[in-house]
Amino acid sequence: MSNRNRNYAIVGTGALGGFYGARLQKADLEVNFLLRSDYEHVKKHGLIVESPEGDFTLPEVRAYHDAHQMPKCDVVIVAIKTTQNHLLPKILPPLLKDNGVVLVLQNGLNIEVEIAKIVGAERVIGGLCFLCSYKVGPGHICHLDYGTITLGDYSQDYKPLGITNRLNQIAKDFKRAHIPIKMSENLLLSRWKKLVWNIPYNGLSVVLNARTDELMANPDTRILVEEIMGEVVAGAKSCDRIIPDDFIQNMLDYTHKMKPYRTSMKIDYDESRPLEVEAIFGNPIRVAQQAGIKLPQIEVLYRMLKFMDAQNQEAERKRQLLSL
Amino acid sequence: MSNRNRNYAIVGTGALGGFYGARLQKADLEVNFLLRSDYEHVKKHGLIVESPEGDFTLPEVRAYHDAHQMPKCDVVIVAIKTTQNHLLPKILPPLLKDNGVVLVLQNGLNIEVEIAKIVGAERVIGGLCFLCSYKVGPGHICHLDYGTITLGDYSQDYKPLGITNRLNQIAKDFKRAHIPIKMSENLLLSRWKKLVWNIPYNGLSVVLNARTDELMANPDTRILVEEIMGEVVAGAKSCDRIIPDDFIQNMLDYTHKMKPYRTSMKIDYDESRPLEVEAIFGNPIRVAQQAGIKLPQIEVLYRMLKFMDAQNQEAERKRQLLSL
Repeated sequence: MSNRNRNYAIVGTGALGGFYGARLQKADLEVNFLLRSDYEHVKKHGLIVESPEGDFTLPEVRAYHDAHQMPKCDVVIVAIKTTQNHLLPKILPPLLKDNGVVLVLQNGLNIEVEIAKIVGAERVIGGLCFLCSYKVGPGHICHLDYGTITLGDYSQDYKPLGITNRLNQIAKDFKRAHIPIKMSENLLLSRWKKLVWNIPYNGLSVVLNARTDELMANPDTRILVEEIMGEVVAGAKSCDRIIPDDFIQNMLDYTHKMKPYRTSMKIDYDESRPLEVEAIFGNPIRVAQQAGIKLPQIEVLYRMLKFMDAQNQEAERKRQLLSL
Repeated sequence: MSNRNRNYAIVGTGALGGFYGARLQKADLEVNFLLRSDYEHVKKHGLIVESPEGDFTLPEVRAYHDAHQMPKCDVVIVAIKTTQNHLLPKILPPLLKDNGVVLVLQNGLNIEVEIAKIVGAERVIGGLCFLCSYKVGPGHICHLDYGTITLGDYSQDYKPLGITNRLNQIAKDFKRAHIPIKMSENLLLSRWKKLVWNIPYNGLSVVLNARTDELMANPDTRILVEEIMGEVVAGAKSCDRIIPDDFIQNMLDYTHKMKPYRTSMKIDYDESRPLEVEAIFGNPIRVAQQAGIKLPQIEVLYRMLKFMDAQNQEAERKRQLLSL
């Protein structure tokens, strides 16, 4: 990765990739956007970002619909949903400079392992986003709240690397683009910590058709959230990642004080998009299982979500057939 | 309990109590029906039963709306939902002859324990119904299929009593009314066995809005059903009731061959009636817990159902307020 004037690629120019990519370009970095359905529109009209931190428009962006047409980049940001990761073996290799890195801004566990199989473990960096944004229309993103990214470097088997030089370089670019950055010395621990929130709230919000405030107000789901969080902590421990005792209580207090919130998985479900069940639920279950630890309550959520996702996608296929 | 010409009381003249009570009266037994909302109608018009085994009408029945007005009976059949059991301490004592018995035709676990607190353990008999019927309107019952009752005598702590004399006497009356009867020498074992079916299918059908055939067709819910059945067997074992190894597979095969079926709890949910969550889920969890055994997957179902039940009842209250 070059020391200065790093160029970026955004794989997946949606609510997340579009937001961060637009911010980077606005900070005068070279950003190349890979698009699918929105390609024609964005090529012609650029990107619009509405945000409480200031609206802005980028009338011209480097838009592409084929990774082979794009310039090789120092940092390739993966911002598609994990349900589309089967596309990456064709996309990533032609996009990456010889000494470039892939920054994976996806939810779930073992995501870096999958990407490492394509580009090599030494070329992968993980990022955990805490962002509320959604796509209003093609190339039009509405940023609602938050936006911090926690960066953590990756090496084989998640051996902690500390804060590396390349992590600092990327952080510098993001800070220049006014994106708040935190650094993690232990990427796998950070991923498990994020799952302490994501697994109970994403899962229960879909299964029970409920917002976070409803799950916290009912005494039974309040207990269930806490028990499931306990299983996530047990899963982390099975990987020798110790989440401190007060972490769960802090998460509960924090969520209790949050505005009523529809989780990202619930939004995906309501919009009939495929759910990231394997990345967020299946992988943690399998990782713990390999260490001999069962996560029975998370498994209930996992199988329920797989059922609901299958039914949802089947209904969506039927709707699309009818609208042909 | 008298040796001949036993008279009966039906507490709860709905789809189940109305069906069995009407059959007993049709066989020339004295049956006294306790009703609430349907009292006026049934007093005037009697009962109608539609059934594949033959439709029939009882233009006149002994209908009551107050247990104190009723004659004391040899056999008092409890056929209300367990969610109404708080009414029984006022209903049962005035209804029961000195040597009479209460036959509890309710779902769930530890039901007999509750009734024994009111009338004494030596006056309780359990019955497990396998019946598909529903109430078309006041005093109008549609019997769809099945109807077998498994009778089992009760004593303190579910100590097995074998097939008692009074069990045989009641069985004789029911057989005279063409109601198929099985006998259980071990009531608690029979109750746990019934839960092997009721817990997964009732629970998942409500949470996932699904019929039995849909739960069996999807590979994830198919596995989940089997795992939850395994927890019920573990719960039974915590009470020293051993369910044989092939029982689960037989249940799965049996359900797979069944017609698509909407479970009774799903029907209750769809009709905005309170769910029997404590009897069917809460009691088994607590009984196992007391023996030091956790049933984590059943607990997920339990808490989800409590949440959904609360939301459903809250919505129902609002509807009723609006319609005033």
